[in-house]
Amino acid sequence: MGNMIDGTQAEYVRIPFADTSLYHISDAINDEAWVMLSDILPTGFECGVLNGQVKPGDTIAIVGAGPIGLAVLLTAQFYSPAEIIMIDVDDNRLEVAKKFGATKVLNSSDGKAVENVMKMTNKKGVDAAIEAVGIPATFDICQGIVGAGGHIANIGVHGKSVNLHLETLWSQNITLTTRLVDTVSTPMLLKVVQSGKLQPQQLVTHRFKLDQIMKAYDTFGNAAKERALKVVLTA
Amino acid sequence: MGNMIDGTQAEYVRIPFADTSLYHISDAINDEAWVMLSDILPTGFECGVLNGQVKPGDTIAIVGAGPIGLAVLLTAQFYSPAEIIMIDVDDNRLEVAKKFGATKVLNSSDGKAVENVMKMTNKKGVDAAIEAVGIPATFDICQGIVGAGGHIANIGVHGKSVNLHLETLWSQNITLTTRLVDTVSTPMLLKVVQSGKLQPQQLVTHRFKLDQIMKAYDTFGNAAKERALKVVLTA
Amino acid sequence: MGNMIDGTQAEYVRIPFADTSLYHISDAINDEAWVMLSDILPTGFECGVLNGQVKPGDTIAIVGAGPIGLAVLLTAQFYSPAEIIMIDVDDNRLEVAKKFGATKVLNSSDGKAVENVMKMTNKKGVDAAIEAVGIPATFDICQGIVGAGGHIANIGVHGKSVNLHLETLWSQNITLTTRLVDTVSTPMLLKVVQSGKLQPQQLVTHRFKLDQIMKAYDTFGNAAKERALKVVLTA
Amino acid sequence: MGNMIDGTQAEYVRIPFADTSLYHISDAINDEAWVMLSDILPTGFECGVLNGQVKPGDTIAIVGAGPIGLAVLLTAQFYSPAEIIMIDVDDNRLEVAKKFGATKVLNSSDGKAVENVMKMTNKKGVDAAIEAVGIPATFDICQGIVGAGGHIANIGVHGKSVNLHLETLWSQNITLTTRLVDTVSTPMLLKVVQSGKLQPQQLVTHRFKLDQIMKAYDTFGNAAKERALKVVLTA
Repeated sequence: MGNMIDGTQAEYVRIPFADTSLYHISDAINDEAWVMLSDILPTGFECGVLNGQVKPGDTIAIVGAGPIGLAVLLTAQFYSPAEIIMIDVDDNRLEVAKKFGATKVLNSSDGKAVENVMKMTNKKGVDAAIEAVGIPATFDICQGIVGAGGHIANIGVHGKSVNLHLETLWSQNITLTTRLVDTVSTPMLLKVVQSGKLQPQQLVTHRFKLDQIMKAYDTFGNAAKERALKVVLTA
Repeated sequence: MGNMIDGTQAEYVRIPFADTSLYHISDAINDEAWVMLSDILPTGFECGVLNGQVKPGDTIAIVGAGPIGLAVLLTAQFYSPAEIIMIDVDDNRLEVAKKFGATKVLNSSDGKAVENVMKMTNKKGVDAAIEAVGIPATFDICQGIVGAGGHIANIGVHGKSVNLHLETLWSQNITLTTRLVDTVSTPMLLKVVQSGKLQPQQLVTHRFKLDQIMKAYDTFGNAAKERALKVVLTA
Repeated sequence: MGNMIDGTQAEYVRIPFADTSLYHISDAINDEAWVMLSDILPTGFECGVLNGQVKPGDTIAIVGAGPIGLAVLLTAQFYSPAEIIMIDVDDNRLEVAKKFGATKVLNSSDGKAVENVMKMTNKKGVDAAIEAVGIPATFDICQGIVGAGGHIANIGVHGKSVNLHLETLWSQNITLTTRLVDTVSTPMLLKVVQSGKLQPQQLVTHRFKLDQIMKAYDTFGNAAKERALKVVLTA
Repeated sequence: MGNMIDGTQAEYVRIPFADTSLYHISDAINDEAWVMLSDILPTGFECGVLNGQVKPGDTIAIVGAGPIGLAVLLTAQFYSPAEIIMIDVDDNRLEVAKKFGATKVLNSSDGKAVENVMKMTNKKGVDAAIEAVGIPATFDICQGIVGAGGHIANIGVHGKSVNLHLETLWSQNITLTTRLVDTVSTPMLLKVVQSGKLQPQQLVTHRFKLDQIMKAYDTFGNAAKERALKVVLTA
């Protein structure tokens, strides 16, 4: 739904097997936190953090500091990695990443991201490189920085194929994963939000009434200029 | 060594295969932090946290707030459990536990620990009950509070057998583990200490010169009265 | 159902959420094979084999050669253990176990099962001891024969508590599990039966028409004398 | 060694840390079986079977029926997959594969391997596609036949990069692994060989005295024509 089935921007919508996918939520928590749990948090957590097998003490890199990359950043911290390097071409987003817990940020617009990450990690590379953009250039950064035994966790929706450097990676014990979120982690995320240890409402930067929906779309369409992360519509 | 082989309180000691168990440590970190990594941190982490399979959002209970229980408390937080209930009979130790990150503390000297934990957890019990004492009474608390699908991770050195309530546990999908620390987690712990996310020197409460060693033993022998956790000897 | 809810020996029965627990089966396979998949096979496989973490090359012991123990025996072979020691007090059942793939059988009626298994394993004990009876004596055999780092997988429905020897097991890296079958493995078992690699109809020893049901009960009630494993009723 | 360090075809060789990599073997087993355990068996098992996470009931495909592919075939059977499809361009090798346990064989020289495997699997693809050649064409087969949620386990030594179809795989929950054998599985393989359940000497097709070594090289160099799998040199 929203991927293979047409989306749900309608007055009424029929959800198949809806009964089996409902969760009880608490009034004590900000509604906007729960909205973030519908899609962006489980996407970042499952496809990025769980598939990247982030562990205590790890050095990880997240390529892409948009809402998905920031969802990875927030949920990766559940596992106490030692270093989280955030990589993007937009300094504003990197600024947000610092506030959200990145230990290092790196603007990759100079084309030297791989070189810089290898310096930061004493040539060892990272334990997990998490792709949160979906283009060949960002995937290339991931394969360039992943260390021996490391993980490349792809989240990005790719429109074309990429060049996989098996001529170097074949002997490096790399695990590369792809995944479409399946929300298996929703019960866990609910408990973490409930405990106050995760406050995903931080991702909401703009709010609009339903009758301003076209303006909301414009804002999200110009996310960089508007410094928009997630946009919430209210009745 | 110290368990099956006589200990090492001697001027010289021969360590078999010592070359294979050395780690490089950094000068930038407090020496006392590294001392805690030799035994107590990996014991709490491996036998308690790893074996208890502590996960983000979990509700866990640690029975025993001595140095081992506190090592569990410090390292369990790597995995962001929602609730950490610390159980002991000594209010001073529970006070320390609060400072170290316990979300709830419970003095079990009234014999109502099981009843109280079940109340705190809406009758669900805990995801992991970690035994850090080593007597039948504390093991009983663990079996009384573990929820369906939960883990009992035994760390305590037991001198006698315990009564295992298979007549209720047989259908509850419980996993009960025992373990003697093997320090497989030392590389991970080194990285977490190095990153500053874990400061195990908090466990050191008393320091003595080597020629005051008998006083050091007395202090540790009267740990409750002296409010002693770990005692460090220096040259 | 059958455990907490009254059973289904009735003309009509209402199964809550039945739609979510139906599987498509093939006509090419013997119906009796599928009947075994409703309960006994997943019970032996999930509670015994999966929880016992049976691996290629392992030495395992199954305590109890009734239908559940034999279901463990059949499904443990999916993972190619090197040795499967079957333990029971009934020589007929041990004879069946040999035909079903046990590499060694042991009649425990002399009270020397632990001693004998330790001899067979050069004092190392077994990698997995699987309890398929449900009484203190058989649980005791399991704790006596489990090797360092091994698993005790309890399947038996216990009516009373057992004595757990933590005074020796505390340092042995043991994992003890309990479980009530949840049939999560049904899709896997269907595929293995479909492939012909598992023929669970071997467990069926007696067949009765529905109007002979009282005789069927008598037969199952005198299983040892009748050499009965599973009894099937047909229309 | 043999990869980054020069090989060992010499009268004397210095093995660093040799003491830590010795295993006790039994005289009761054919020496040639143990020779196969030095490299080819663990390579096929670790990089192919373990990384491909082969499970009971799985449908798997092995691309390449040379000695490595056949080592995968032998060791995959430890986990009782339902179907093992062997793919190669050489009918002789496929014939050997049938004898070694392949349930289906497929000559890919017509360029229709993907199409044929999808037919064989009712368009579902395979649970694990194991690459045992090391060229773009065989890697392409693997990405074409892997089913949703499946694994691509690369073993082949690749000389150039490959085209990875993220535009279709991004949403398919694929896990792609690379690995250079580390022999962590040697203790397990020793036990399985010891038990007689694995007879790797089947891989040896030719034997030469040490002074016929040039002829041995010629034979291995013309493996297809000579129908050679592994060649053993004796004193």
